[in-house]
Amino acid sequence: MREVPKDAEAKSHALALRAGLLFMASAGIYSYLPLGFAVLKKIEEIIRKHMNKAGACELFMSALQPIDIWQKTGRDKILEEVMIRFRDRRGRELCLGPTHEEMITEIVKKNVFSYRQLPLILYQIQTKFRDEPRPRFGLLRTCEFIMKDAYSFDATQEGLNVNYQKMLGAYQDIFKECGLNFIMTEADSGAMGGSLSHEFLVPAEIGEDMLYFCTKCNAYYKKEGKCPKCGTALLTKSMIEIGHIFQLGVKYSLAQGALFLDQEGKRQPAIMGCYGIGVSRLLPAIIETNSDDKGIIWPRGVSPFDATMVVVGDALLQEALALAHTLEKSGLTILVDERIESAGVKFNDALLLGSPYTIVIGKNYTASGKIEVEARKTREKVTLSPEELINFFNNERERNA
Amino acid sequence: MREVPKDAEAKSHALALRAGLLFMASAGIYSYLPLGFAVLKKIEEIIRKHMNKAGACELFMSALQPIDIWQKTGRDKILEEVMIRFRDRRGRELCLGPTHEEMITEIVKKNVFSYRQLPLILYQIQTKFRDEPRPRFGLLRTCEFIMKDAYSFDATQEGLNVNYQKMLGAYQDIFKECGLNFIMTEADSGAMGGSLSHEFLVPAEIGEDMLYFCTKCNAYYKKEGKCPKCGTALLTKSMIEIGHIFQLGVKYSLAQGALFLDQEGKRQPAIMGCYGIGVSRLLPAIIETNSDDKGIIWPRGVSPFDATMVVVGDALLQEALALAHTLEKSGLTILVDERIESAGVKFNDALLLGSPYTIVIGKNYTASGKIEVEARKTREKVTLSPEELINFFNNERERNA
Repeated sequence: MREVPKDAEAKSHALALRAGLLFMASAGIYSYLPLGFAVLKKIEEIIRKHMNKAGACELFMSALQPIDIWQKTGRDKILEEVMIRFRDRRGRELCLGPTHEEMITEIVKKNVFSYRQLPLILYQIQTKFRDEPRPRFGLLRTCEFIMKDAYSFDATQEGLNVNYQKMLGAYQDIFKECGLNFIMTEADSGAMGGSLSHEFLVPAEIGEDMLYFCTKCNAYYKKEGKCPKCGTALLTKSMIEIGHIFQLGVKYSLAQGALFLDQEGKRQPAIMGCYGIGVSRLLPAIIETNSDDKGIIWPRGVSPFDATMVVVGDALLQEALALAHTLEKSGLTILVDERIESAGVKFNDALLLGSPYTIVIGKNYTASGKIEVEARKTREKVTLSPEELINFFNNERERNA
Repeated sequence: MREVPKDAEAKSHALALRAGLLFMASAGIYSYLPLGFAVLKKIEEIIRKHMNKAGACELFMSALQPIDIWQKTGRDKILEEVMIRFRDRRGRELCLGPTHEEMITEIVKKNVFSYRQLPLILYQIQTKFRDEPRPRFGLLRTCEFIMKDAYSFDATQEGLNVNYQKMLGAYQDIFKECGLNFIMTEADSGAMGGSLSHEFLVPAEIGEDMLYFCTKCNAYYKKEGKCPKCGTALLTKSMIEIGHIFQLGVKYSLAQGALFLDQEGKRQPAIMGCYGIGVSRLLPAIIETNSDDKGIIWPRGVSPFDATMVVVGDALLQEALALAHTLEKSGLTILVDERIESAGVKFNDALLLGSPYTIVIGKNYTASGKIEVEARKTREKVTLSPEELINFFNNERERNA
């Protein structure tokens, strides 16, 4: 889009719409267009990698859920307002899952019978639904959103502690690899019903959470006032919540009867933890902190392309495509802009789309066989021959491997 | 599950439940447990590979849709019975998409303005919802199911013909790679409103479509009676529909105003095609035709594991894991059954789960360092040393590359 949409309140929202990442069907209801989907896919693969490494197994639960499993924990009432609920033609009362603690507890109840099957961590990346009265800030507060939700089941509190630490470590690795400058803070477990809980937050102007920041100690605090270390007056910082992990204990397993036989043959409720990441929220969180006045600056880990190739003029297209092909054979992914548009339009769009590098095949190439490469973040330029270009990207890749 | 579930009408449904692929929360509402999800993922990756190769771009549309886009085509009435519809707290009328023609047409309307942006094929792999009054046969007829839906947009009928043929070719490649013995037949386009249409069907006892089969010519026909080629009496065959492709023409683009400027600067409606695969339906379709009385026989392309390793007795576990690790380093995926269960239970479960090979590390290994490998399909056995085992799988892999 050439123009900044009027109704985009957040920088990340305006950029996501301008760069063609998203399509809004109605307030709070978004589709991911190919470029937005490509980033989402990158984020999902980073999450999968670290979840699998931590020993979690992926599954995929239904979005539809029978209301009776919610009645067992009483959360049909607690979440009544946000839950999308209806009666189907068979007369069943169903809801669209705003979360899946009850469903996973049912699954484990029907499949886990012995301490020998524990510990167990299960996770999914899936769409959740909320009847959100005030959708805001693009993907930040929506009626339909993608979450990674993981659930751990243990025979002992010590086991839960181990799994909780594993997930806490995996979360740090995930957010780092997504290029997010995040803060981790111990939090209230609130309606989830457990004890220990940590939140992962990203500083962003549009955030709805608040922390207090000491510029001198570079530290965040939950309470306003002065820095407990150095006495400097704390600044208010708004934050986006991107992840939340909870020790749930036995609230769900007791209410739903998810019991297992322990070593002594006694029935015990499974001890649970739950671990959420707002997958679709990571997209605006990344853009909020990785962008400038020209557009998005994707961190390397989530950029769908290693470089955008701007081809100026039809005459150079075949050579440009051959060069892109050579780069792709060495494992790079290149977005070739072969539209019939001016160099200026294409170059600005490359800045907007935010690949780590822009490769320009234009005047310079016709005159002297030289290619310009500009780093998106620093805007530093180098002029290279085709052979040098290939070496440049091979070196880049090795540096980042 | 040790016992065949009583309410499983179809062989594929009983096997999917016994092998722990699925969890039923309520009739027609299924979650994919880790093994089922792993197969689903394999199927999805095959689909993505061939769709991308055919030049289609992946996106991800919202499940929630505003009802007004359906009013433009009148399909809010046509699909009224199966559409899950509700009013949210903001007072908006929304539905859960039973399909996405209207939504994709809105997206293209707002993003495609010139013939220069055409042709275009967009696709997604996503969850659809139907208020299904008679859910049946496990994943065959459900209230929530996964589809791959693709949509082509062209400036000319010739363009549509080209894209239609591309998709038709991609579908054949996809179903072949999934190990499906499919039939392709020209079909009625019915409620979709277009002209040319092809269905992809798989012979299966639980199928709800009918074809007539000549055992002599090995050919399928739509009408009963005698074979038009050889005069043999045709047999009735029930079939599962797994894919359907349609030339839609301008029905949707005209109704919704998805117009583009042609080379003469005239506004024209985009000429559309749509291309569906019942992704979650492929799972039972594959099982129906790839199983025996012992369990599932996954075709190589969709099997999440190259082999199941049955380890008998705790003493051999470390050696078995080291061997599995060596095999995994050479690019294989091994499911190691390290449960404390008898050899018989584990071996039967390996047959039930259906990996192409079962590797047994047991008595024979303790006695003479030999490993048994049994092919799931033929039940042929070989006895190998660890070095021979690695060569065996390397050769296998090369043969199938």
